[in-house]
Amino acid sequence: MSFQKFPRHLLSIRDLSRQELLKLITRSAEIKHESKRKFANRENCQLSGLEGQNIAMIFNKRSTRTRVSVETAVGTLSGNPMFLGKDDIQLGVNESFYDTSKVISSMVAGIVARVSKYSDVANLAQHASCPVINGLCDTFHPLQALADLLTIQEAFGSFKNLKLAWIGDANNVLHDLMIACAKVGIDTSIANPKNVEIRSDILDMVRESSKESNATYAIGSDPAAAAHNADIVVTDTWISMGQEAERQARLKQFAGFQVTEKIMQLAKPHCKFMHCLPRHPEEVSDGVFYGPNSLVFQEAENRKWTTIAALEALIVNRGKI
Amino acid sequence: MSFQKFPRHLLSIRDLSRQELLKLITRSAEIKHESKRKFANRENCQLSGLEGQNIAMIFNKRSTRTRVSVETAVGTLSGNPMFLGKDDIQLGVNESFYDTSKVISSMVAGIVARVSKYSDVANLAQHASCPVINGLCDTFHPLQALADLLTIQEAFGSFKNLKLAWIGDANNVLHDLMIACAKVGIDTSIANPKNVEIRSDILDMVRESSKESNATYAIGSDPAAAAHNADIVVTDTWISMGQEAERQARLKQFAGFQVTEKIMQLAKPHCKFMHCLPRHPEEVSDGVFYGPNSLVFQEAENRKWTTIAALEALIVNRGKI
Amino acid sequence: MSFQKFPRHLLSIRDLSRQELLKLITRSAEIKHESKRKFANRENCQLSGLEGQNIAMIFNKRSTRTRVSVETAVGTLSGNPMFLGKDDIQLGVNESFYDTSKVISSMVAGIVARVSKYSDVANLAQHASCPVINGLCDTFHPLQALADLLTIQEAFGSFKNLKLAWIGDANNVLHDLMIACAKVGIDTSIANPKNVEIRSDILDMVRESSKESNATYAIGSDPAAAAHNADIVVTDTWISMGQEAERQARLKQFAGFQVTEKIMQLAKPHCKFMHCLPRHPEEVSDGVFYGPNSLVFQEAENRKWTTIAALEALIVNRGKI
Repeated sequence: MSFQKFPRHLLSIRDLSRQELLKLITRSAEIKHESKRKFANRENCQLSGLEGQNIAMIFNKRSTRTRVSVETAVGTLSGNPMFLGKDDIQLGVNESFYDTSKVISSMVAGIVARVSKYSDVANLAQHASCPVINGLCDTFHPLQALADLLTIQEAFGSFKNLKLAWIGDANNVLHDLMIACAKVGIDTSIANPKNVEIRSDILDMVRESSKESNATYAIGSDPAAAAHNADIVVTDTWISMGQEAERQARLKQFAGFQVTEKIMQLAKPHCKFMHCLPRHPEEVSDGVFYGPNSLVFQEAENRKWTTIAALEALIVNRGKI
Repeated sequence: MSFQKFPRHLLSIRDLSRQELLKLITRSAEIKHESKRKFANRENCQLSGLEGQNIAMIFNKRSTRTRVSVETAVGTLSGNPMFLGKDDIQLGVNESFYDTSKVISSMVAGIVARVSKYSDVANLAQHASCPVINGLCDTFHPLQALADLLTIQEAFGSFKNLKLAWIGDANNVLHDLMIACAKVGIDTSIANPKNVEIRSDILDMVRESSKESNATYAIGSDPAAAAHNADIVVTDTWISMGQEAERQARLKQFAGFQVTEKIMQLAKPHCKFMHCLPRHPEEVSDGVFYGPNSLVFQEAENRKWTTIAALEALIVNRGKI
Repeated sequence: MSFQKFPRHLLSIRDLSRQELLKLITRSAEIKHESKRKFANRENCQLSGLEGQNIAMIFNKRSTRTRVSVETAVGTLSGNPMFLGKDDIQLGVNESFYDTSKVISSMVAGIVARVSKYSDVANLAQHASCPVINGLCDTFHPLQALADLLTIQEAFGSFKNLKLAWIGDANNVLHDLMIACAKVGIDTSIANPKNVEIRSDILDMVRESSKESNATYAIGSDPAAAAHNADIVVTDTWISMGQEAERQARLKQFAGFQVTEKIMQLAKPHCKFMHCLPRHPEEVSDGVFYGPNSLVFQEAENRKWTTIAALEALIVNRGKI
């Protein structure tokens, strides 16, 4: 499989081969290590690659972590991040997607898009003359999955012989995390509430992604069963932006799915906890979230380091990973 | 005519002499060509000039193309663009124009202002201690006219023996385009609907601007007559921001003014089509807008290259062109 | 007193020793002088220090001068300013202060926060792994006080034998200005309307701050008495953001407190006038505000130079001043 064509986009982790994914994580760790060493020694921490280049950040929805990690990643790479919020540009309103995509991509070196629908970012990518990176949509969240893998590698040294349990919603974050685990060889065990089901096309992608690694996945609706013997327990908010009206119904639907100390005791000793933030108390207890085995702030910081590696690969190195 | 005083502003194309205008277009083409060559060779595309300098972008109205082209132009020139939208700063509200102009201009190397009224940008310029560039107002749009001239030069090799037909509104874009054409020697033929008339003071400027080139202009209300024998047909939206309430009345008033394949057939073979975007279907058919003779996306991209040249001339080179 | 621990924050002028405060002003003057010399000679005015570094600007309230001075200061120091307005991030909403502070500080080299309550910026600083600078809160405004000291030094050559009169509100700007004057040895004379009183804990800080300089302060409610023999008269708006509803009551309360030519005549000949802007006519007459002894625009410009020095000390030099 050759990816020499330019522009190359990153809309989901499935756009990366197993080897490329592993290389991106290795490169992220290298960048993080080198940058921290330079900062400690008071050396210049700037990375080269985007000098005089502009990266459009088209954010139709608010997203603090993605905003901050992408904007700081671009700045670290010596580029100019251009934030375009929903008041600055409304994709598909006042102008066709095609026109906007052609125009903006002709003026920038890359686009990071945080949109509502997958079809929106796919549409942008289809017509853009520069790389488009999915900063989060209803279906995928590749930059989060990269940060999660780096965090897991830091905690366990490798991706071998690990079981990751996801307890909670069947959402965009889970989709790319399952695909990422399948590629690198982490077995996953998922517990979703009844009537909250992972899309079958996503499961097809997961199976396809595990071909080289032979990673397995299991899906059920019992948090205790999912957590059993896990090395990592992961969850996410149950009530995403735009779902606030359904709050009471969601809380009822997810009853029993809070990640608590009791759940963590079913997992392996020293089992780690991860969460992509922002966190709300209903999905995880304070004891777990702020506890000694929580990796949540390391995971958040890793959003920056992995985004730097992704921008470097797709934009600076033009898709060659 | 000497422009050695600093700061020198760019509020309209009339602020540039014929020679200066031609030089700016030549320099824009040079910057574009060099930057594309470097990008293709994977060389550093950064331009020097604004290192450690800040450019305020005071945008009281939304304007995607101006925003993106100015912000990326500043970034390409190694400067720091500071976007101040209407929620960040409200010119003339809470503080006098004079005070705001004095304060902001004391902290930045230049200001690009996108305001409603010409008097607002003129007011800013009057009191500013740094160059002020008009990023669009109700009367002028010099950065668009620069992009249009570069696009025409790319398509025809020079400005000689060309007829440009404008079919549509009598607006800010037309004003500076007519002045620009008059300066470089492109004959213009304008068709506006009845009761849509070009301001007489603008026509005075057009005549004044054509003194060196002897370019002509003709004004009528018949799209077919305007398009006859044209090398370039140009239009713009009929319903600008703030005019949405008058939509039905405007559509009726402009009936028959859509640029269609039929209109284009009255022009010269291979006649080019231009539009400053955003485009709506009422003013131009899909066939023309997306057709092989449309220059619209090249024209949009040229906003960036010509803005780089304008910032370089007015700010980096302090008004010496 | 050693400040070698990192991160070191700047929440109020009281966080600086007298020596550090004097050094910061000296360094600000040096930066300003050098930058203006380089600009005049068309040399590169860029300062090094923040290459590849990102500074988060968390602005929960609008503040044009702070926004522009901080953003341009970061740009001048070769860094990337990341503006996060109230629509981008809502401190304490949707996520705990602790979580936001940990996450953002892990991705940036420094934070400048413009919040409503002192407790908010103190909370941020408590948990942040990077320096936090108070860009304005209800209680302190250290960056304004730095600019005021630089302006006074420029006007008088030193801080010796000066009397500063403040006529107006008892607010955040006054708090840090009194502390700053106490540290550098400027005597202050304050006139506040009846029932507008300086907080007693702030006066404790002022007394504590004057230990090395023996500067004095006097508080009363008579503008004429305060202005008597003053070298500098300072005021600020009476109606800050959020107080618009109380406008009529405030105007009544502050009757007689407008700084007029008559008030200025009670001060020393050539007495200077200062105001942190934005200015409204009720608190100072046009004659004084725009008069030959007004330093208001120099004072506003100095916001940038002193902020550069503060960022350099706290972030680039990691708290060593």
